[in-house]
Amino acid sequence: MRVLAKDIIQAARDKPGETVEVKGWVHRIRELGGITFVILRDRSGILQLVLEEKPDLTLESVITATGMPALNEKAPGGTELKVQALECISRAETDLPYQVNGDVSKTGLEAILDNRALSLRNPKIRAIFKVQATIIEAFSAYLRSQDFTEIKTSKLVGGGTEGGSELFEVEYFDRKVYLAQSPQFYKQIMVASGMERVFEVAPAYRAEKHDTPRHLNEYVSLDVEMGFIESEKDLIDLEKGLLTHVFAEVERKNKAELELWGAGVPKAEAVSKAPIVPYEEALKIANAEGEKHKGGRIFDINPEAERFICEWAGREQGIELVFVNEFPRRHRPFYTYPLDAARTMSFDALFRGLEITTGGRRQHDYNAMLEVLPKFGLKPENLAGYRAFKYGCPPHGGFAVGCERLTQKILGLSNVKEASLFPRDRKRVEP
Amino acid sequence: MRVLAKDIIQAARDKPGETVEVKGWVHRIRELGGITFVILRDRSGILQLVLEEKPDLTLESVITATGMPALNEKAPGGTELKVQALECISRAETDLPYQVNGDVSKTGLEAILDNRALSLRNPKIRAIFKVQATIIEAFSAYLRSQDFTEIKTSKLVGGGTEGGSELFEVEYFDRKVYLAQSPQFYKQIMVASGMERVFEVAPAYRAEKHDTPRHLNEYVSLDVEMGFIESEKDLIDLEKGLLTHVFAEVERKNKAELELWGAGVPKAEAVSKAPIVPYEEALKIANAEGEKHKGGRIFDINPEAERFICEWAGREQGIELVFVNEFPRRHRPFYTYPLDAARTMSFDALFRGLEITTGGRRQHDYNAMLEVLPKFGLKPENLAGYRAFKYGCPPHGGFAVGCERLTQKILGLSNVKEASLFPRDRKRVEP
Repeated sequence: MRVLAKDIIQAARDKPGETVEVKGWVHRIRELGGITFVILRDRSGILQLVLEEKPDLTLESVITATGMPALNEKAPGGTELKVQALECISRAETDLPYQVNGDVSKTGLEAILDNRALSLRNPKIRAIFKVQATIIEAFSAYLRSQDFTEIKTSKLVGGGTEGGSELFEVEYFDRKVYLAQSPQFYKQIMVASGMERVFEVAPAYRAEKHDTPRHLNEYVSLDVEMGFIESEKDLIDLEKGLLTHVFAEVERKNKAELELWGAGVPKAEAVSKAPIVPYEEALKIANAEGEKHKGGRIFDINPEAERFICEWAGREQGIELVFVNEFPRRHRPFYTYPLDAARTMSFDALFRGLEITTGGRRQHDYNAMLEVLPKFGLKPENLAGYRAFKYGCPPHGGFAVGCERLTQKILGLSNVKEASLFPRDRKRVEP
Repeated sequence: MRVLAKDIIQAARDKPGETVEVKGWVHRIRELGGITFVILRDRSGILQLVLEEKPDLTLESVITATGMPALNEKAPGGTELKVQALECISRAETDLPYQVNGDVSKTGLEAILDNRALSLRNPKIRAIFKVQATIIEAFSAYLRSQDFTEIKTSKLVGGGTEGGSELFEVEYFDRKVYLAQSPQFYKQIMVASGMERVFEVAPAYRAEKHDTPRHLNEYVSLDVEMGFIESEKDLIDLEKGLLTHVFAEVERKNKAELELWGAGVPKAEAVSKAPIVPYEEALKIANAEGEKHKGGRIFDINPEAERFICEWAGREQGIELVFVNEFPRRHRPFYTYPLDAARTMSFDALFRGLEITTGGRRQHDYNAMLEVLPKFGLKPENLAGYRAFKYGCPPHGGFAVGCERLTQKILGLSNVKEASLFPRDRKRVEP
């Protein structure tokens, strides 16, 4: 019966004097005074194997070892295994193109991504995706606790609701369709269908040509939509509760992973203090901060402004999380609900210097939507899907959290691509 | 403070004599002896509103009503609301193209799908997706309890591992990529990365031209992959545990939905008795059953055979769930692990007459994979991604459950498209 590395201590205590079997990868080999130390890596952690005879092993080979656990303060985790028998299940060739047990901070991003299948073996790199799994789990669990229903909608759409410039085209039998930029339309339809509260975890696509540390052409969108809201403030409340739960779960389940990255998550009390700042005021704050940095004038909540506003909030409120609301009409899609002639009931969430969420209340009145279309260069045909809103639709709104961006900012990664298992950019479509 | 339809009874008991507020859609209007009965529909169920004056309402309008709850045995759910004030939040136009409160069994599938945004308002149709949400939640929860990690992998791939005839082509900047048929390669890479046990819930694409009640061109694939297995039997054990949990959760959470469809799920004891039948034996069973139906000879586990084999199991074992294993080499992809020269360590799960799962142990030895390539008309270039297997890979395997097919078979739907929120077939890409 196999025992995981992390459970060896307990196995030794429960059944002293009994041999155990371990399985995993050869992480490191070291010889010292006739004894060989092999660091075994499995899904739970690492374990030191002690061998009296020099084994014929290569790094990254997969092995099974049986032996007697023994306490050793100097061994990682405080235990080691005195090996009695060792079997190589899968022998690794020696021309390893990526040093799995190396220092990640000294490896360039391109090398990490080019050798993705091997770089993911590094515990620090794999830790990113343990945290991401917790984010997805906690996001879903929190929303279910609030009576939201998980949905799965099509990623192949006949046309872009918001215009077609950033869409990837798909050859679909004898016609062309597009990869969905977001489940926006579908989640609104599902609110109007009477499900009222829905969420979706699914890929989203942007055919943007930029190659920046904050963009991915394919990303995991954590989408939320709910009916019977008054304004975007209901959504901000929901997202505060949601982030509080996500942070708490990451802290509870991913202590080791946070430690590897020297990272921490905000406490519930801090999240509750995250300020809500109207767009115009946020611009002033960004410019005031900018002056300190002797920057030029800022006319928009651009990436620089996002950093400045979070710096301000960190200093003033003790948390680098800010909800900027009341975005101007011209900055938001046609379906955004108006606050007045110039402003909308919309918001962005900025976390640690990066926009991680966009959301807002949506127009639920079909005729009001029709009216604004010309201002956005759209035609009534673009609204065909929204016809169901003519037959009763509650006030509603929602938001989307970029899963990779949230992962990135929780761990302090410098590029969002690090937080995507198999990132897609203009040049990269493999592995 | 809003109260949901399902909570009205409790509200009346907790605070007798207090008015409550309800919100929802106008499902039905009936006048009787000067009194108007409005059936309100919200996400939790339906509630009878009683109005002394005739309201100016249309079917499907969204309303808010306040009033006093009262017990009434004749009302659905045993309670009704004596309305004191009523507000129409969103007035529905009267040319409703789909009768939401109609009898689903009398509506054709095309009408249901053409009017998807409205047909989903029908409680019986929406129930399908409440069950589907439970399936996804239970699938994920069970695998997490077995130490599996959720992953999200790219759906844009450079080429098809298994050949390119059934792939959708995507214009990706200045080159062509394809929509992934399955996360097969990625989940294997993640096992080899040391995560060992992974699962994914994500869309998968098949550019198949058939239009049958069992095919979708885009479906939700529930994928599993695990390391350190001996044979496909370990996977069948895992799937039995998984299905047992999924069925139990659907039974626990979706009583009302099962009732609407007159459906039930197998008990744990029945699932444990599901037989494992080798391919050749399964063919014999199919032919023996076929003779009873005076059908022609069956040479393959085709849709007809799937029905016959499940009928046999239902009669002999008391459950229409069968694991057919040991598929011939020629029926399985190149990466399937051999049992002997002719057979493989692979399996299908058939449930209530339909294949819902395909899986098997995979070849983890890179050189062994290289050797079989020519038999499958593949070249070493097709294996580029699997290079990481040269550097240590544990024995492993996995399977994929078709989410829509499982939903279909649990509820007894006649077409898998009914179990997809926004199904895609050769002709349908909207809504």
